[in-house]
Amino acid sequence: MFLEACRGEKTRFTPVWLMRQAGRYMKEYRDVRAKVGFLELCKTPELACKVTVDAVEKLNVDAAIIFADILLILEPLGFNVTFEKGDGPKIDPPIRDKKGLERLRAFEPASLSYVYEAVRLARRALKVPLIGFAGAPFTVASYAIEGGGSKEHAETKAFLHRDPGAFRELLAILARSINAYLRAQIDAGAQAVQLFDSWAGALSAWDYREHVLPHSQAALAGLSVPTIHFGTGTAAFLEDFAKAGTVTGIDFHVPLDEARARLGSKPVMGNLDPAVLLAGRAAIEKETRRILAANKGRPGHIFNLGHGILQQTPVEDAIALVDLVHRETATS
Amino acid sequence: MFLEACRGEKTRFTPVWLMRQAGRYMKEYRDVRAKVGFLELCKTPELACKVTVDAVEKLNVDAAIIFADILLILEPLGFNVTFEKGDGPKIDPPIRDKKGLERLRAFEPASLSYVYEAVRLARRALKVPLIGFAGAPFTVASYAIEGGGSKEHAETKAFLHRDPGAFRELLAILARSINAYLRAQIDAGAQAVQLFDSWAGALSAWDYREHVLPHSQAALAGLSVPTIHFGTGTAAFLEDFAKAGTVTGIDFHVPLDEARARLGSKPVMGNLDPAVLLAGRAAIEKETRRILAANKGRPGHIFNLGHGILQQTPVEDAIALVDLVHRETATS
Repeated sequence: MFLEACRGEKTRFTPVWLMRQAGRYMKEYRDVRAKVGFLELCKTPELACKVTVDAVEKLNVDAAIIFADILLILEPLGFNVTFEKGDGPKIDPPIRDKKGLERLRAFEPASLSYVYEAVRLARRALKVPLIGFAGAPFTVASYAIEGGGSKEHAETKAFLHRDPGAFRELLAILARSINAYLRAQIDAGAQAVQLFDSWAGALSAWDYREHVLPHSQAALAGLSVPTIHFGTGTAAFLEDFAKAGTVTGIDFHVPLDEARARLGSKPVMGNLDPAVLLAGRAAIEKETRRILAANKGRPGHIFNLGHGILQQTPVEDAIALVDLVHRETATS
Repeated sequence: MFLEACRGEKTRFTPVWLMRQAGRYMKEYRDVRAKVGFLELCKTPELACKVTVDAVEKLNVDAAIIFADILLILEPLGFNVTFEKGDGPKIDPPIRDKKGLERLRAFEPASLSYVYEAVRLARRALKVPLIGFAGAPFTVASYAIEGGGSKEHAETKAFLHRDPGAFRELLAILARSINAYLRAQIDAGAQAVQLFDSWAGALSAWDYREHVLPHSQAALAGLSVPTIHFGTGTAAFLEDFAKAGTVTGIDFHVPLDEARARLGSKPVMGNLDPAVLLAGRAAIEKETRRILAANKGRPGHIFNLGHGILQQTPVEDAIALVDLVHRETATS
């Protein structure tokens, strides 16, 4: 169902999966994390495979996404990446100017072989399609420039406006690396890939179009499987954002009928506000039905949240959501 | 110039002021804060007046905004509000359900008389118009529900979806209180008021229209001066957002020509990305000229940042920005 929907084909029901479906809200995941740190989990293919598959079995979703992190690619590029409890990721040393580009190492796809091994293991264990993924050039660059997460992305945007040439060079290097990384995941068995531009919404539409979109297109260029392009805060430039990727991920801000009206026949993924999953079954049913109604039965809709699932989410309610989407959209 | 532009009238040049223009990036402000805490500054009319006026004189802007905080109104409503260094505001106890509404005290406008006194003092000291302000019902509610700032606003939206009736009641109480608070600021001499819905962008367009907009309209209802309605992340529902207020504040995401095309003859305020002020004079000139060109000389444009000025901003560059807007738009 999932791959057909990615191609805009009619399906017997609307396929559904949940961003960050293998995560802290799920006991099976917490049990694994009680024993290993976050990076160790990413780097242990058997465990990354286990949490990937556990989530699919628990939720009965129609696609798996390999357990990994968008920042893994920064290690082979020459950064020290650490995840400290409660503190978010730290990237060291941050890149702040053109000179910092000289420190970048050439990306060797083999450096992330633990991800491909997890992909191979999960693909063998799964009955549903497996999605590979990477961070988009802008979002990965933002972490590298800020040295971690950021609210304002001020350093990133100051870099962009101060030295657009060096910024372009940085994003072009990242785009090439990400493209090679996604190809290697596909070679290992990923049947679709998703590009996460989590911070795209930090930009003006002007800056997005001119300084970011070309690099996201390059990151997804020439891939042999369907590609999903997801970002948050993209309402101001959704038509442009949709120019990269087979499927456009819609965050929860834009109602699905409005998104589809803006994007024509483009397949879409989304877009329940993850906070609704904290509001009880009645709210979940109401808001889910509203999204399905807004889609008006059009093909090319993959149901998902409009952002990653929250860790306070009751797992039973996530299961109920998946079941509801299946029941409400079954055509026979 | 400023008040004429709020009314959509032609002006000799484009008026400009900068959100959070009295703030940490400015030495005069840091000198005051070296002696008093943030809340104490808000509650000492002479000092609030001083930092308000200092910023206008230093920058040569065309409007002042009274120094205060959107959370001050929560104290007389029965919350304990504290600002701890580096930690952001804490609101105690947070409201989490219908029962929490019973704890709310009726708003007595006189409880914030220190704000009105600062308005009176500043009005007397200023040659440019003085703007009063308040937080919008949704943003103030979000702080009261989360107990402080929040990235996800998950508790707020869970409350909204779990008990829309109680949520409506909370926002209606806040809207009435805010309306009374703004009236008192106007009575004290504020010549315009701004409603800050800083967190409006946390919502879907559906939720914004249904659960938030009516309360922002009520907060601004029947006021005798021009009103500015500002929010960030409003691109998905800008036309609806513009239904409250005389002037619509445009954050930096939506290019000004696209905003004006969407809003017709509505006066607008904005919208330089504050991060551009960290990128040096060449970038500031380029991006400022781009915004002015996008406005195509139409009346009803107040130049501003698309969000508050960042504390790393070089003050000379903020001064240069104001001067540039004046020079570029002078008609004789």
